[in-house]
Amino acid sequence: MAESSLKGTLYGVGVGPGDPELLTLKALRIIRAAPVLAYPAPEKGDSLARSIVAPHLPGGQTEIAIRMPLEVSRFPAQEVYDGAAREIAAHLRAGRDVAVLCQGDPFLYGSFMYLFGRLAKDWTVAVVPGVSSLTACAAALGTPLAARDDTLVVLPAPLPEEVLEARLKDCDAAAIMKLGRHFAKVRRVLRRLGLEDRARYVEHASMANQRIRALGEIGDGEAPYFAMVLVHKRGEVWRVT
Amino acid sequence: MAESSLKGTLYGVGVGPGDPELLTLKALRIIRAAPVLAYPAPEKGDSLARSIVAPHLPGGQTEIAIRMPLEVSRFPAQEVYDGAAREIAAHLRAGRDVAVLCQGDPFLYGSFMYLFGRLAKDWTVAVVPGVSSLTACAAALGTPLAARDDTLVVLPAPLPEEVLEARLKDCDAAAIMKLGRHFAKVRRVLRRLGLEDRARYVEHASMANQRIRALGEIGDGEAPYFAMVLVHKRGEVWRVT
Repeated sequence: MAESSLKGTLYGVGVGPGDPELLTLKALRIIRAAPVLAYPAPEKGDSLARSIVAPHLPGGQTEIAIRMPLEVSRFPAQEVYDGAAREIAAHLRAGRDVAVLCQGDPFLYGSFMYLFGRLAKDWTVAVVPGVSSLTACAAALGTPLAARDDTLVVLPAPLPEEVLEARLKDCDAAAIMKLGRHFAKVRRVLRRLGLEDRARYVEHASMANQRIRALGEIGDGEAPYFAMVLVHKRGEVWRVT
Repeated sequence: MAESSLKGTLYGVGVGPGDPELLTLKALRIIRAAPVLAYPAPEKGDSLARSIVAPHLPGGQTEIAIRMPLEVSRFPAQEVYDGAAREIAAHLRAGRDVAVLCQGDPFLYGSFMYLFGRLAKDWTVAVVPGVSSLTACAAALGTPLAARDDTLVVLPAPLPEEVLEARLKDCDAAAIMKLGRHFAKVRRVLRRLGLEDRARYVEHASMANQRIRALGEIGDGEAPYFAMVLVHKRGEVWRVT
């Protein structure tokens, strides 16, 4: 027990949806104090998660960029996370806390999960929840997500068309995320269910390049990965039915 | 147009799940700057939403406590919100911004919705998203909510037993919120579906009185309103299936 108290803690820190002002005070405190920061990054170029906290960094921290090749099959991705987990574990073993930056919230479709799965058994882990893109999208659209006794379903757009359709039938409200190249399929399902006029689209919510568009305007292949459709069957969510 | 620029803005501000450190920088800025604060409160005593921000208040602000009788049918509650909306509108008309404090996130089952429905047509409204109790519960439990292409369903516990059961059958993960006196019903459904060992319970997540308990330990009538059950059918969420 005495020995383990010398080990570092692994923090999974939600840094929110993109606006640096949507960081929490707790995230800020932990990110500033950690001797080591780790974050997902593209193969080349800047990390979005790091850019969110950049205005707040004191400087002098060790940084681990977890660089993911753009197009990877599952196995190289697993190797990248294996390597990052080893590097992080070495810092923890040496008694240094490591803060892993995670866009949105670490436990809601967050990339932190891949490190958590590798490190949670052997190390002390603490998670700092963050503002999720779900609620950032609702705020950007000026449209409530869910109220009262609504059932809300969160659907990743890569799901098969028939699964999306079935789940959309059985809810009051839905958030369909990670649109990207799945946008045309999602719009097709919404049309088939007569829900297109109840659906709203936003991309890069809370970021400098946030954009709200009508569903009918968006060409195939135009929706980015960080785009979401929110649907509410009542339209005016807050009304009692 | 010139005239409307003299009017105040109505802010719906998510103050997070309870821990005052889970406030965002943006919430803090807006709450401190607003000449008028409004917040839900019980008939007598302190407002939970106000207590979250209390350490950060500069003093000297006008405060509107929206006091809700403990046991109300729908119509008195509507009268309370009607009165609050009138009081808030008077401040907006006089050019004063009003920040409405909302636990968690304003557009995710937030009480702000009742004011939004009354005021959004006539006034400028801006919503500041907050950390939701959903992700605060997951962080408290050290259990991911959803990963990869999981479908996640959010279910208010007051829903009828057969609706809870049907929705729980058709998802990978679920969050069942507002447990209170509905706890026994929820546990019954989880048992019937063989999901009890996949479910975790936490109350008052992120607050000083946070408590994690085993489902089997909790007596009827013991779960508070701010209690949640998280379920994931894979158990180890991050594993690929």
